[in-house]
Amino acid sequence: MKLYKNPPIDSWKEIFKRPSSDLTPWEKRISPIIKDVQENGDQALYQLTKQFDKCQLQDLRVSKQEIEVSESLIGTNLKDAIWRAKRNIFNFHSQQKMNNYSLEVEEGVTCWQKKIPIEKVGLYIPGGSAPLFSTLLMLGIPATIAGVQNITVATPPLKNGTIHPAILFVAKILGINNIYKIGGAQAIAAMAYGTETISKVDKIFGPGNNYVNFAKLLVSTQGTAIDMAAGPSEVAIIADESANPAFLAADLLSQAEHGADSQVVLIATTEEIINKTKQQLTRQMQLLPRKKIMESALEKSVFVLASSIEDAFDMANFYASEHLILAINDAQKWSQKVVNAGSVFVGHLSPESAGDYASGTNHVLPTGGHVRADEGISVDSFMKKISFQKISPLGLSSLGPTIELLADVEGLHAHKQAVSIRLNSFLEK
Amino acid sequence: MKLYKNPPIDSWKEIFKRPSSDLTPWEKRISPIIKDVQENGDQALYQLTKQFDKCQLQDLRVSKQEIEVSESLIGTNLKDAIWRAKRNIFNFHSQQKMNNYSLEVEEGVTCWQKKIPIEKVGLYIPGGSAPLFSTLLMLGIPATIAGVQNITVATPPLKNGTIHPAILFVAKILGINNIYKIGGAQAIAAMAYGTETISKVDKIFGPGNNYVNFAKLLVSTQGTAIDMAAGPSEVAIIADESANPAFLAADLLSQAEHGADSQVVLIATTEEIINKTKQQLTRQMQLLPRKKIMESALEKSVFVLASSIEDAFDMANFYASEHLILAINDAQKWSQKVVNAGSVFVGHLSPESAGDYASGTNHVLPTGGHVRADEGISVDSFMKKISFQKISPLGLSSLGPTIELLADVEGLHAHKQAVSIRLNSFLEK
Repeated sequence: MKLYKNPPIDSWKEIFKRPSSDLTPWEKRISPIIKDVQENGDQALYQLTKQFDKCQLQDLRVSKQEIEVSESLIGTNLKDAIWRAKRNIFNFHSQQKMNNYSLEVEEGVTCWQKKIPIEKVGLYIPGGSAPLFSTLLMLGIPATIAGVQNITVATPPLKNGTIHPAILFVAKILGINNIYKIGGAQAIAAMAYGTETISKVDKIFGPGNNYVNFAKLLVSTQGTAIDMAAGPSEVAIIADESANPAFLAADLLSQAEHGADSQVVLIATTEEIINKTKQQLTRQMQLLPRKKIMESALEKSVFVLASSIEDAFDMANFYASEHLILAINDAQKWSQKVVNAGSVFVGHLSPESAGDYASGTNHVLPTGGHVRADEGISVDSFMKKISFQKISPLGLSSLGPTIELLADVEGLHAHKQAVSIRLNSFLEK
Repeated sequence: MKLYKNPPIDSWKEIFKRPSSDLTPWEKRISPIIKDVQENGDQALYQLTKQFDKCQLQDLRVSKQEIEVSESLIGTNLKDAIWRAKRNIFNFHSQQKMNNYSLEVEEGVTCWQKKIPIEKVGLYIPGGSAPLFSTLLMLGIPATIAGVQNITVATPPLKNGTIHPAILFVAKILGINNIYKIGGAQAIAAMAYGTETISKVDKIFGPGNNYVNFAKLLVSTQGTAIDMAAGPSEVAIIADESANPAFLAADLLSQAEHGADSQVVLIATTEEIINKTKQQLTRQMQLLPRKKIMESALEKSVFVLASSIEDAFDMANFYASEHLILAINDAQKWSQKVVNAGSVFVGHLSPESAGDYASGTNHVLPTGGHVRADEGISVDSFMKKISFQKISPLGLSSLGPTIELLADVEGLHAHKQAVSIRLNSFLEK
């Protein structure tokens, strides 16, 4: 843990520096996997799953039977919790379905914009130690609201060849049937290029480890769209004297448990809060199972004493974190000052966990400062806008000469000609 | 020109194949340029501009004086045409400013979404042979509607160190003052990393040659967002027996004049239309200045005879082109079938040129089939959505146990703890 007291603005770049992610070494590891899947299809997937997941699959695809029985393999409490999270996420995301619009720009010149769902999407759901069924809620719900017809899910199998029933139960209630037992770079390659069993998709979504993230970057330079460049998860907290150090420590730890490379930042306006939070971190960590991971993450954590609440917001906007918690008085009023963040948790009783699971907002968010220009998953992520225009004889007679002149000045004479030849046809009649 | 008659669906992949764009050879040429700008800043920019643009600059920045006098250097007709195009583009794009929304998802759990402009954007405007002031309209107008505060423009200078006055006039009427006389990969590097004179931006927009496109791809893997992966421009036309071969040829040529690598596709339901269009192409080409370029582009063009209008739409959606022209009867009704395209021109009197310049829609669009999952520039391209949530004591008491259970099943105990510690604090009171 490093503590900086009232750091001058020209030191912020160094203080809030993130570890750089160099693609080069990963490219050497991942390119052969992608090539293997492109060349050998399903056969490569069976072999790579044996190699990386220690699992000899009988079938790549999850059977109808497996999806059907998932419901009986998990408790009623969990099912109820999943339904409640689903309802909240669905209701929040339903508001995002923007209407199409049409405008008669000039007399006889009508332009309109339509939002159309992407035809085929692939959702990557990390498995292994933690079965991240919540991520399937976060991706599957906006995909179905958007109206995507063809949803493929890839998730790594356990050694015994099964998928956690909570993941399958979520797929079931969302009506998703194309689920494949593959993980890592091979899953990304299979969805990007297709195999005998798995259809090529137009866009790949979802978080993952370095293999998954770099494989997504590689396929994105070769024609398959991806949701975002993903990296280590991160949280920044702004705290004033009203903050509860026990809550702050719990929030920092919930970020730190994601991995040793998690980014954890506390910006406080009093040194007392920082000191008490440190004590709480040590105390709470003792009682939690992922202590080692949290300790590693906290080693690189940053604590900053800010000279004012305004200063704290300037720093948080500069850092531009995936998650931002406002543990301050009048948090809602101050939240107006946020310009760079993925998801913001307003006030002392809004932990990041709420948005991670069940309040309704999405938890798939850009990291690494990408929130400056990018955003979390929404219904829009699963749609594309297409513009249309229709011009009448009157419209072309009126606007045509303007188009001709503009094309002429840009030296694009065939562009001009496409208008002239139509205008001349009016004269011939 | 290749002609395919009623090709079976399993041949479409080969017929509509685009030339692959391999990053590797370009990386070797462009990486040193980017590194040079990162290390040597302005000095590298002066030197590279001398090398590539044959121009010895006195100042990187366009002066206030240069912007001011631009108005007197172009004719009234051109100014009027630019104002009219600006008005139409502004009116069409103004409809895209989606409202923020807020929802009380459950009692005491309020979530909201806000759209916030990106702070700093860079617009690349190609110059050289054609001064593409229309592209500055297409990028600058949505940027200003979005409310972007810091807009930087980079455009290559002519040999005498000037910028075409039409570009400066557009900048003037849009209120853009930060204009720099740099082009190519060095311009992209300067905006991505910043130099003494040029501020680093959060996202880079705009079309360009291979140097520009690959430089954008490279900086996008290192933290600067880009608008889209751009490649050779392309048009597909669906024509039935009602189409006018002279119009079709003019539209195909207006695409072909962009460059020898332009993609030109005609899908017609009668062979007569194809034959007549070919005759028209030869005739019209004689009279146009960019004949050589058009001939090269047309050599690789694809003509397809479709067995039905439905078949033609299936092919056009499969090809997924940047521009799609519907030169058919009942074009507006049929336009409902379009699912993959960037911008669609409906009916015989709607040439692509209209959308390129003045009807109101945007002309910066994805190519290379990227429209399957991506879209053209809109006001959204210059904004990002941030989600917020605020939970009351009642809300956390009610939703808290659901969050605890979900976190527990995913094995994320610190996430659970962040809720438990708050719920326990209620009991203590």
